[in-house]
Amino acid sequence: MDPAALLAKNPALVGMIQDKLNTLVGQSSGYIESLPADVRRRVSGLKGVQKEHSKLEAQFQEEVLELEKKYFAKFTPLYQKRAQIVNGKTEPTEEEIQAGEEDEEDDDEESGAVKEEDEDTGPVSGIPEFWLSAMKNQPSLADLITERDEEALKELNDIRMEYLDRPGFKLIFEFNDNDFFTNKTLTKTYYYQDENGYGGDFIYDHADGDKVEWKSGKDLTVKVEQKKQRNKSECASQCLYNYH
Amino acid sequence: MDPAALLAKNPALVGMIQDKLNTLVGQSSGYIESLPADVRRRVSGLKGVQKEHSKLEAQFQEEVLELEKKYFAKFTPLYQKRAQIVNGKTEPTEEEIQAGEEDEEDDDEESGAVKEEDEDTGPVSGIPEFWLSAMKNQPSLADLITERDEEALKELNDIRMEYLDRPGFKLIFEFNDNDFFTNKTLTKTYYYQDENGYGGDFIYDHADGDKVEWKSGKDLTVKVEQKKQRNKSECASQCLYNYH
Repeated sequence: MDPAALLAKNPALVGMIQDKLNTLVGQSSGYIESLPADVRRRVSGLKGVQKEHSKLEAQFQEEVLELEKKYFAKFTPLYQKRAQIVNGKTEPTEEEIQAGEEDEEDDDEESGAVKEEDEDTGPVSGIPEFWLSAMKNQPSLADLITERDEEALKELNDIRMEYLDRPGFKLIFEFNDNDFFTNKTLTKTYYYQDENGYGGDFIYDHADGDKVEWKSGKDLTVKVEQKKQRNKSECASQCLYNYH
Repeated sequence: MDPAALLAKNPALVGMIQDKLNTLVGQSSGYIESLPADVRRRVSGLKGVQKEHSKLEAQFQEEVLELEKKYFAKFTPLYQKRAQIVNGKTEPTEEEIQAGEEDEEDDDEESGAVKEEDEDTGPVSGIPEFWLSAMKNQPSLADLITERDEEALKELNDIRMEYLDRPGFKLIFEFNDNDFFTNKTLTKTYYYQDENGYGGDFIYDHADGDKVEWKSGKDLTVKVEQKKQRNKSECASQCLYNYH
């Protein structure tokens, strides 16, 4: 699975919903108790059958996870090649460029001739701001990114995912040297419960993130003091001026 | 996968969203065209790499589908047993009842002693209104079911799913003899496109449902005529009366 897709899924939210549903499981609405005894026995029997279903469902989820890991290993060389191209460590092959350009023919017709390289800029390494652009193209993320965040996210050079030995995964955000913090990587690890849920599916438990080592005065989580007070007094004096 | 879970997913809605996303793929925001030529070549190269990713993703989706079918075969005897218990064709085993009752101990404590069978009702076959109850316990379905619908849905005795030979699946709703229509089963078939989408995933195409053979005057899709006209004329005459 692509890390960007994982990000978009917001496992914390999924976990909260699962927790809520789990509190509802087994709660009585009074309906079951109102049934004749022989019907209640049949409902109990169905719950027993459902337990067998849940065991199979848990096996199914395990097999899907194994399949995901198998394909993750196949995807990884492509992600590595992407990182190398994005960060200017290698150039794409002619075959890769041609395969990509097949999709672009319509675009080229619309936008006219290929733009010549600007003469007043030097050669550019890799694809600048690739990950910032990717994040801004994901609507649920775009709304969260402030202009100040962008300055730091411009220096994001890779996002990777790793599976844990227990249920869960880790997201790794790798940065260039930047003005905001000293960490080279920021990771966030999502832990799932060891026991599958009532329905046999994995259940989100909690997530831990690295502490960001902010450079002095560069903590992006601290709100910049708005100089509203000054504007307000300017307005006040202006109002005063008009009043006279 | 359980048919109830499939129902809840609303593939038509998923399909509409996918269609919308597909129209966006390849659309230009002008950003790419603004890049220097060597950066554009790298972006084209990444698209070529992404194509390899999509091929692998399509293989992954195929393997997941095979896994779903493998487990569907394991689930099927449990679904068949459920149908037999629900419809009074067999009783659950003691083991099944005991396994189910393990989850209920807390409920019993809350609701007091097990209710004795009512003496003025005869023996009840199976679990009446099982599927109507299931549907009413699914919030997204509950809001769609009117009181008139309930009269027909009380006679729903099974919901099953079948895979198609092509991408897609069929839902089968089986009914007892009822006052509303002559069909024994109503089916709805969901077709997916033969070609996987840009990202390698299956894409919903369309769905076909059986024609319901309504009994005379029993079509539940026709709104019951509200006797407003009469009320209105009553009101009009009353107004007239008051006017005099």
